[in-house]
Amino acid sequence: MRIDFWFEFGSTYSYPAAMRVEKLASQHGVRVNWRPFLLGVIFREQGLTDSPFNLNDAKGRYMWRDLERTCQALGIPFQRPSEFPRNGLLAARVACCFDDAHWVGNFVRGVYRANFVVDTDIADPIVIASCIASAGADPEAVLERAESPESKQKLREQTEEAMRIGIFGAPTVVVGDELFWGNDRLEHALAWAKS
Amino acid sequence: MRIDFWFEFGSTYSYPAAMRVEKLASQHGVRVNWRPFLLGVIFREQGLTDSPFNLNDAKGRYMWRDLERTCQALGIPFQRPSEFPRNGLLAARVACCFDDAHWVGNFVRGVYRANFVVDTDIADPIVIASCIASAGADPEAVLERAESPESKQKLREQTEEAMRIGIFGAPTVVVGDELFWGNDRLEHALAWAKS
Repeated sequence: MRIDFWFEFGSTYSYPAAMRVEKLASQHGVRVNWRPFLLGVIFREQGLTDSPFNLNDAKGRYMWRDLERTCQALGIPFQRPSEFPRNGLLAARVACCFDDAHWVGNFVRGVYRANFVVDTDIADPIVIASCIASAGADPEAVLERAESPESKQKLREQTEEAMRIGIFGAPTVVVGDELFWGNDRLEHALAWAKS
Repeated sequence: MRIDFWFEFGSTYSYPAAMRVEKLASQHGVRVNWRPFLLGVIFREQGLTDSPFNLNDAKGRYMWRDLERTCQALGIPFQRPSEFPRNGLLAARVACCFDDAHWVGNFVRGVYRANFVVDTDIADPIVIASCIASAGADPEAVLERAESPESKQKLREQTEEAMRIGIFGAPTVVVGDELFWGNDRLEHALAWAKS
């Protein structure tokens, strides 16, 4: 059994979900397909110029407090990033290009930690290189392939696929035809995958 | 211990939360303050002309399916209303004016059933009168007081209060200074109230 875990590196609620999904899935005997996409592209299609959490003050204030409480309840470290949303394009290209690599889960979690624990700029190639190295891969070779035209095109197509199947936010877990949006639907999605 | 349960009669996720909150709260030894407000007023302040679920196709499609799954998992009957969102103004005036009455919980649940199970128009005074009668109160006397200038003003002020304390959606449970948005935060809110 497999689930598609659709995520965006800049997205706040994708953080606790990404940190948990692989372990939780393996407890259910389910495999995870890492499906990074660019949420900003989907927001622009919706006519939004920024994250809804920046456009709506009350919603933004609530989200930061709720995320803090959520991470605390889950035992996941969290520090509010000084910049939001950060640009996850390069990280997404790496994760998309190497979605089958044995090190991709560690890479994804490393990038989320860089953004939401260490508060570093994940748009910086040096930060991403360090996340690749920590995950056990070769930064130079990985970055070269991740920035190839084919890799850029793959991420573009993956974002279009996300839109086509009805994804409007992150994280979204897809099980067959069923969408589960949000960190708080992760358990429900895994139960569905097993049923 | 008390929680404020802020809700809107037209709101989809308010439905399962309103059906559950009083029983769940009493299991936690917590009392519920019923706090109806007009979410449409807050949406207009945000520049929205309709429910986000109508303005964003993908989000709307997701919500209806997710609500169906959620109600099924909770054992709560659900039928998608033929009109959305329905106008809950009269029902909100009744619940606001009689928020201390012993029958208010039954009235609230009756209105939600009318909207989300029986698919009747809760803007219709005849439907609301029948919900009042089913809850054990006198429809004529209740409606007369609910439509008085003082009662209209009370609901206006309650909606302003909702906005002032940072409410942007429904349902929202408020415990002290903490907001918990959504049916899926109900258990978390009650645990917080007890802590």
